Amino acid sequence: MADTIFSKIIRGEIPCHKVYDDPHVLAFLDVGPLSPGHTLVIPKQAKAHLHELGDDAAAAIGRVLPRLCRAVLQATGATAYNILQNNGHAAHQAVMHVHFHIIPRASDGRGLGLDWTPGKLDQSDGARLAAQIAAAVAG
Amino acid sequence: MADTIFSKIIRGEIPCHKVYDDPHVLAFLDVGPLSPGHTLVIPKQAKAHLHELGDDAAAAIGRVLPRLCRAVLQATGATAYNILQNNGHAAHQAVMHVHFHIIPRASDGRGLGLDWTPGKLDQSDGARLAAQIAAAVAG
Repeated sequence: MADTIFSKIIRGEIPCHKVYDDPHVLAFLDVGPLSPGHTLVIPKQAKAHLHELGDDAAAAIGRVLPRLCRAVLQATGATAYNILQNNGHAAHQAVMHVHFHIIPRASDGRGLGLDWTPGKLDQSDGARLAAQIAAAVAG
Repeated sequence: MADTIFSKIIRGEIPCHKVYDDPHVLAFLDVGPLSPGHTLVIPKQAKAHLHELGDDAAAAIGRVLPRLCRAVLQATGATAYNILQNNGHAAHQAVMHVHFHIIPRASDGRGLGLDWTPGKLDQSDGARLAAQIAAAVAG
């Protein structure tokens, strides 16, 4: 995959406001924050999309996320927040290196805006689709 | 914490369209999908918010997410998708048990709608805030 700004940050070629660093994971402030404390959590493994990420890198991010969330809440005073991870241009991904956003909800309401227009799961469609996904997981 | 519909699903008291099950993690279709294949991934540990989740439960979810994403993409034919995990009513959390959404972007555009209004990180504010968060992580 092409080199991204995140690979340059990992290599220290571009500065960042670092909040956490371990052999698998780097976390730093987003330079275009939706709210104060908006943090990016990235694997050091350079993969564009979550479905391409190795199990160990993904587990390392999962393991540290609760601790990073506690720290962001403590530093900002926020009590609500969203975790968001976008994959593909059609899903609003801008940098082609996996990144999880931790986005606090500020007291003035700033944070992640969501447009939630749910459908209703048809029972027979659901059974068929769940079986397909389960088979693909097992596959 | 109060019992939720997800605890009832984990105990098998309420049915679901299951796609994955292991000692730490359960995944099933959302009954109010934003797009076909919209899947929920939950820890069996009953915690309301991600920052309260145990390290092992969080690592188990992180580890299996890439595999579940591959399966959802394979079954739906989608190529783009969002991972979303909401914490607190102010951040649109509806069920008070940690859940990660896998939301495919359908070919007709259905999926997660985002309202993204970024600010610009002030360098001195960023340095101060990053130091506060890093100190909180180090605990």
